[in-house]
Amino acid sequence: MVADAEPRVLKHQIVRKNLDALLDEMSPGDPFPSERDLAGKYDVARETLRQAIRELLVAGRIERRGRATVVAEPKVVLPLAIGSYTEAAREKGMTATRILVGWTLDAADDELATLLHIETGSPIVQLERVFTTDGVRVGLERTRIPGYRVPGLVDTFDHRASLYTELARRGIRFGRVIDSIETVLPDAREASLLAVDARTPMFLLNRVSYDADGVPIEQRRSLYRGDRMTFTAVMEA
Amino acid sequence: MVADAEPRVLKHQIVRKNLDALLDEMSPGDPFPSERDLAGKYDVARETLRQAIRELLVAGRIERRGRATVVAEPKVVLPLAIGSYTEAAREKGMTATRILVGWTLDAADDELATLLHIETGSPIVQLERVFTTDGVRVGLERTRIPGYRVPGLVDTFDHRASLYTELARRGIRFGRVIDSIETVLPDAREASLLAVDARTPMFLLNRVSYDADGVPIEQRRSLYRGDRMTFTAVMEA
Repeated sequence: MVADAEPRVLKHQIVRKNLDALLDEMSPGDPFPSERDLAGKYDVARETLRQAIRELLVAGRIERRGRATVVAEPKVVLPLAIGSYTEAAREKGMTATRILVGWTLDAADDELATLLHIETGSPIVQLERVFTTDGVRVGLERTRIPGYRVPGLVDTFDHRASLYTELARRGIRFGRVIDSIETVLPDAREASLLAVDARTPMFLLNRVSYDADGVPIEQRRSLYRGDRMTFTAVMEA
Repeated sequence: MVADAEPRVLKHQIVRKNLDALLDEMSPGDPFPSERDLAGKYDVARETLRQAIRELLVAGRIERRGRATVVAEPKVVLPLAIGSYTEAAREKGMTATRILVGWTLDAADDELATLLHIETGSPIVQLERVFTTDGVRVGLERTRIPGYRVPGLVDTFDHRASLYTELARRGIRFGRVIDSIETVLPDAREASLLAVDARTPMFLLNRVSYDADGVPIEQRRSLYRGDRMTFTAVMEA
């Protein structure tokens, strides 16, 4: 079963090659031709073209602006790291900020208590923010910290700032973080907060951070737009 | 604009909570109720339910088997690492193997030559394989190695084995790898080789591996099914 031999697959690959070449000649913001025009130009079925366009949307090469489709800005490339993504984006010359979604004061359920090595029912401070780069909402981050770690945080913390910097100021030092990385679709609330179509694949990062003594600092759930973000990871032998 | 206030979003969240609870009581392989039955049970619009089901498919909680939908096996969780994913999966008690897609002997174009620190036109050995765990095709990996590194590889290497083990046997030691991680849709050929629907979000890992002297060993492009794979990353301060 060599898939390459199928005419449908071949057609698709030729169309993708043509579209990639077309995009290489265009600049961010340029209007992208309509599906109908492209189907005529390359003499392929609308469905073949529709799939190719879906791929380009998900890959972040093109984007919808209302009813128009335009060439997208390059994706934001950030290292998968312990540190602050706000700081990392700023170092790359982007403007980056956080929009407050909400603070929640809650009590740990069994699952969270186990993750954070605290008693069930212990106070938890939850902060949810939207992460933006160059004015675009690219991520939704929810962090949960045991209350005893961060007295007064809700009243004093500027939500636009780096939480990691604030924790460092309080003497909390990160020792190790463990991320799990998945691809998911946003639910309706998340799609609305990130202003994306509900069919946009997202990165879901679930993280537990530990201090130098191995005591958990936070449980974090981050959702990043797959069409806007690329992560890099460097591993040494 | 507090999204939570929208009735559509609320409805969606309630449906997701109900479906998650339903799934928690079911076992892999159990038939999942039809969209029509669920829409009736939870008294919601078909479109709300359709989106929730799409989310569960992408998240790998349920899967299509022909016209039926069943509860999926848990995802494969592998550490993002320099080493062999075949070995990592086997250590977790899974069966894991590779299916040969093809060997290609080629000459490096400008881009690849730059990545691999070789002359344009130098011989390249390309190996493309499908990675399976427990009989399921979960990944498609294409690695390109400068020919001078691996004389005779095509004739002697058992494609079911770990390439990293073979390179180690040849005295090639990995020093550092750099991965970029994106989410993409498979193209028609990739969807066919992995036997997935073309709307399944995938992880795309582009890797360059270097030896201890900083000389590139390989350029690797790996596509993993987002609905079947979770990666973990551990970072130390």
